[in-house]
Amino acid sequence: MGSGIYNAHEMKALAKRSAREGLELVEAETPRPGPGEVLIKVAAASVCGTDLHIYSWDEWSRSRIAIPRIIGHEFCGYVEEIGPGVEEVAPGDYVSAETHIYCGRCYMCRTGRAHLCEEVKIVGVDRDGAFAEYIVLPEKVVWKNDPSLPIRVAPLQEPFGNAVHAVRRAGVGGKRVAIFGDGPIGIFACALARKFGAKSVWLIGLSTARLEIGKKLGADEIINASTQNPVAEVRRLSGGRRADVVLEMSGATTAWANALFAVRPGGRVIAFGLSRGQIPWDLNTVVFNEIEVIGVVGRLIFETWYETQELLTELDISPAITDELPLEDFEVGFQKLFRREAVKVVLYP
Amino acid sequence: MGSGIYNAHEMKALAKRSAREGLELVEAETPRPGPGEVLIKVAAASVCGTDLHIYSWDEWSRSRIAIPRIIGHEFCGYVEEIGPGVEEVAPGDYVSAETHIYCGRCYMCRTGRAHLCEEVKIVGVDRDGAFAEYIVLPEKVVWKNDPSLPIRVAPLQEPFGNAVHAVRRAGVGGKRVAIFGDGPIGIFACALARKFGAKSVWLIGLSTARLEIGKKLGADEIINASTQNPVAEVRRLSGGRRADVVLEMSGATTAWANALFAVRPGGRVIAFGLSRGQIPWDLNTVVFNEIEVIGVVGRLIFETWYETQELLTELDISPAITDELPLEDFEVGFQKLFRREAVKVVLYP
Amino acid sequence: MGSGIYNAHEMKALAKRSAREGLELVEAETPRPGPGEVLIKVAAASVCGTDLHIYSWDEWSRSRIAIPRIIGHEFCGYVEEIGPGVEEVAPGDYVSAETHIYCGRCYMCRTGRAHLCEEVKIVGVDRDGAFAEYIVLPEKVVWKNDPSLPIRVAPLQEPFGNAVHAVRRAGVGGKRVAIFGDGPIGIFACALARKFGAKSVWLIGLSTARLEIGKKLGADEIINASTQNPVAEVRRLSGGRRADVVLEMSGATTAWANALFAVRPGGRVIAFGLSRGQIPWDLNTVVFNEIEVIGVVGRLIFETWYETQELLTELDISPAITDELPLEDFEVGFQKLFRREAVKVVLYP
Amino acid sequence: MGSGIYNAHEMKALAKRSAREGLELVEAETPRPGPGEVLIKVAAASVCGTDLHIYSWDEWSRSRIAIPRIIGHEFCGYVEEIGPGVEEVAPGDYVSAETHIYCGRCYMCRTGRAHLCEEVKIVGVDRDGAFAEYIVLPEKVVWKNDPSLPIRVAPLQEPFGNAVHAVRRAGVGGKRVAIFGDGPIGIFACALARKFGAKSVWLIGLSTARLEIGKKLGADEIINASTQNPVAEVRRLSGGRRADVVLEMSGATTAWANALFAVRPGGRVIAFGLSRGQIPWDLNTVVFNEIEVIGVVGRLIFETWYETQELLTELDISPAITDELPLEDFEVGFQKLFRREAVKVVLYP
Repeated sequence: MGSGIYNAHEMKALAKRSAREGLELVEAETPRPGPGEVLIKVAAASVCGTDLHIYSWDEWSRSRIAIPRIIGHEFCGYVEEIGPGVEEVAPGDYVSAETHIYCGRCYMCRTGRAHLCEEVKIVGVDRDGAFAEYIVLPEKVVWKNDPSLPIRVAPLQEPFGNAVHAVRRAGVGGKRVAIFGDGPIGIFACALARKFGAKSVWLIGLSTARLEIGKKLGADEIINASTQNPVAEVRRLSGGRRADVVLEMSGATTAWANALFAVRPGGRVIAFGLSRGQIPWDLNTVVFNEIEVIGVVGRLIFETWYETQELLTELDISPAITDELPLEDFEVGFQKLFRREAVKVVLYP
Repeated sequence: MGSGIYNAHEMKALAKRSAREGLELVEAETPRPGPGEVLIKVAAASVCGTDLHIYSWDEWSRSRIAIPRIIGHEFCGYVEEIGPGVEEVAPGDYVSAETHIYCGRCYMCRTGRAHLCEEVKIVGVDRDGAFAEYIVLPEKVVWKNDPSLPIRVAPLQEPFGNAVHAVRRAGVGGKRVAIFGDGPIGIFACALARKFGAKSVWLIGLSTARLEIGKKLGADEIINASTQNPVAEVRRLSGGRRADVVLEMSGATTAWANALFAVRPGGRVIAFGLSRGQIPWDLNTVVFNEIEVIGVVGRLIFETWYETQELLTELDISPAITDELPLEDFEVGFQKLFRREAVKVVLYP
Repeated sequence: MGSGIYNAHEMKALAKRSAREGLELVEAETPRPGPGEVLIKVAAASVCGTDLHIYSWDEWSRSRIAIPRIIGHEFCGYVEEIGPGVEEVAPGDYVSAETHIYCGRCYMCRTGRAHLCEEVKIVGVDRDGAFAEYIVLPEKVVWKNDPSLPIRVAPLQEPFGNAVHAVRRAGVGGKRVAIFGDGPIGIFACALARKFGAKSVWLIGLSTARLEIGKKLGADEIINASTQNPVAEVRRLSGGRRADVVLEMSGATTAWANALFAVRPGGRVIAFGLSRGQIPWDLNTVVFNEIEVIGVVGRLIFETWYETQELLTELDISPAITDELPLEDFEVGFQKLFRREAVKVVLYP
Repeated sequence: MGSGIYNAHEMKALAKRSAREGLELVEAETPRPGPGEVLIKVAAASVCGTDLHIYSWDEWSRSRIAIPRIIGHEFCGYVEEIGPGVEEVAPGDYVSAETHIYCGRCYMCRTGRAHLCEEVKIVGVDRDGAFAEYIVLPEKVVWKNDPSLPIRVAPLQEPFGNAVHAVRRAGVGGKRVAIFGDGPIGIFACALARKFGAKSVWLIGLSTARLEIGKKLGADEIINASTQNPVAEVRRLSGGRRADVVLEMSGATTAWANALFAVRPGGRVIAFGLSRGQIPWDLNTVVFNEIEVIGVVGRLIFETWYETQELLTELDISPAITDELPLEDFEVGFQKLFRREAVKVVLYP
């Protein structure tokens, strides 16, 4: 994909075209499905933090993205056409997709951990993405949506799935749970920790507006780290016992400085947020308190998708959708996200 | 304990008497067992890294040790006298002891994790220790030794138990195991990883002499980090797949810089070694590879002791005993340890 | 305990005095606390299935109970007097107690599994119990109640704790859960499965009245096994997929005949209900479907008590209390239980 | 497959041709690989208990096998030809195959448990098998063998993989392990329990010859259940503590009657052996002792294959090969197996 897509004038797409900040709305050639591939007409697509990184053209983006590249990977749509050999989906199917295109051949893939595939290609990063009228994907990552799932919510399955995977790995039932990070995943994690019977859910962040949405979705208490000391607050709220489980979903150095002191001996810390550069760690605290630090990435393929599908019949996560815009107005949404005024922005091509 | 022990001239002991480097051989009052306590005549005691810290009077020691203090906590001996209410041990019993005197009342103690007791007192640190002719301990930490266990080996149950706990938590059966740290625990871990069916055991350290002892006890390959690149070697030995399990038992910053890159996606890293200050961490590697970093400290009380007792009927760890000395010659042993020429030094009072 | 308690006329108690069906209200000598023991004035005590067995004087009771014996083990009360050496509780404390008096010395006790103690003594079975004005217990099993816990609910901590232990072992978050058995523990399990985020909770039983209480406490659907086929219903409700988790809390042969077919491949079955004699098992189903059958008994000491205490600040289980009676009217309560008209009967001495 | 294969005279095969006891050596049409399929020239194939059932034409066989059917599923060979779309194997590759042809589409397959596939087809049962000069299989179940693995051992990967999966699920490191069943899987389990550091390995069976092979491969003690009481022996050997782990690999009713009493409280029992009809269970023992009974079937696809491949570079299981015969002499091997004189019989077509 990606070769020569700007020659024709067949579809609208949002792409990184030049090695500098920003994105461009372009006319791109509508892709065609090859063997085992599926052409999907995109109905809605939401903006992820990864898209912000690519917009900013930060160090990671510069090292990873080959331009030109259509970006975006959280979406839903309808199957328009199938390539040869496609068996499980048919034109008209209402679908979304797993973002990690796993190889299926490596040790990880062959032992039930395809989300850790060593040859993974990421939609909207390593191949053209979903901020477009059409997208082509291999059948193996296409997921048939529950027909009752609203179009505006369906793109959120992918990031919500991140939170499902993280919260399930954390084990929150009956536990005191502290969540660092008031981005979408941290906010979704509040809803899930509440759903799975956490004794207490404390959301720690920097944006009052986002923290309030976290509270609406399930946090018992919100802690604004710009004015409060998260460790002191967690100790106070737990009667000195600290959290049984911490989910670190911000990647911030200051969050990590707090996270290891906010968890009780024998507790678990989920490492989900990505950081810039190295994080200084108080490793002796990990040792003396036998803390478990568990990295979590992506979603279990497809166990998390099944769970997500079922959870979304019970949980209403739509309060996290703060903005809905036509694809053309993407700039408005991106800027609100940069200013942390939005949580999830849904674009309609 | 510890108050006024230097007035009489009843027993020999090794103590920190002044707030400066070094230890002194002193005459101390023989302690008496109070209610629930046991007086033990020490037969042998081995030197731990903690004792080296106290000798050096480093920052940690200065903040933790109240002088005067008899040190030492790895030992064996014979019960000499029991205090009121002692029921399970009797004079003449051949015993060692768990070093962590747990409170039995806190949340950790009451939920089966006494080794994480929040009010723990450590033998030879927070109360007088075993580098002496006699020691008094609460009955609850006293462990009856297997009568067939040699006196020279029995003190090693405590540090060997550290390795048992760490290796069991790691899960090594059928796995490629990389161990960072050629101190006693790393060397013991080699024997245990071999015993529990690790596919491969690679020991990484800085001392040729110690690495060779590790090889004798169970390592398939030894990697001298002063001349070899541990990550490159682990990759080479595993055909590019890296280790399934890493045990970090050195606490060195450089070891940690390697540890996270020596483990495969979905692998486990045991954090056991204590570090000076903070360790810079490549957290994104933990996240992207879903690495599990598990802190391990002490021994499960008393599950690890049972296991240790049984394992020592099958494994010969005596090659780790490099030096045996009368208590009076402690200085020789300590200096060899500081120079990394010794592994375990056993002192006889 | 138990020797000569009927000589004096100091307190009222409910006892098995003769080797035949029934219980007797007797005058018994008020017990005195020995070293490490606590005298408790009983405020309320609830009736357990075990008490029904002893009343009936069935085969198990005949083989286990030494008469005369005061029975009853689910209770709360106030500390009246403490024996020598008692340190953690004081007169006036509002308490309940763990029913399993563990020895503290066996392998199970010393490795964090005191609830599986091989020398366990059970309150109201192996020593005098709580259907009396006073009871004496070792300090080590006494539990300080949350002051805000109502007296009528506090005795239920013990059976509710059974359900907490079972449901936690089951792992119900996001799962389809089928519970066989509409007794108190099955009903409590409904509340807990709901609390911990089960996707669906299906209660299977024989008593319409009890099933309705289960529905009130948390079951989504109730299945009356006297008129419906539980396996067919579970298949229908799950769209053919069956339950992810089954809790067998009846011990009935017919329930077991269904339980293994109501769970999906790779699913888990908690075995909690006690049966009369052997149960015919379709073992090939266990093998081919890799089912996990996990025995659960009692409560984790004291992890389950901590959890129970916290859960009861959030869950109202009082709808399970169907009857409250003075101790003298015990016969009314027992007969309603035998007729399955009651769930929990609380007696006030 | 299977339709019209007896019209031509292209290859030799061992088939069930009539609905009665016995097998017949037939001339069958050499199969051709369709899309995604692989034609393999069989080099060696070993006899499994399933083959004995089909030979005997027992109740299970009659209900499952459509005749005519070529049987056999443990084999190795060389790829002769590949069908369209086959990408990972090539003519000349030295291969074996997973016996469970999973669908890849069901919930189990899509959540990493393909060995529990709800639409599974079994080689040599549901489609033509490996007791033939050629076999055709879908590429997805073909496994590339280690080139150094001897042809006579390679067919044993499949049953040895059963033992690998079972022993890994059991967790045997440092444990006392009792294995019921002296068939091939029980014997392989001895080797694996030894390899993975079991403290003790006790093999229980009925055939002196087979028990002796178990001893050669790793059992510390063998117990002949025809003359000894297995529970009494296990208690004696463990000093009264019983086994920590039991692997039931016989399916015999008497074995199960013993298995639950041979395991300690909190212990684990692996249910692997298939039984005829229902097994009477002492369920209260499961409950009171919190025993875990874990069904195990097949192999993890392909995690177990990777492990098996590596283990066979270290373990020599060839003593389990008691007979090697040309395919034509199959009757000799089958009869020795029926008389329990053989362990593994390898046939060469």
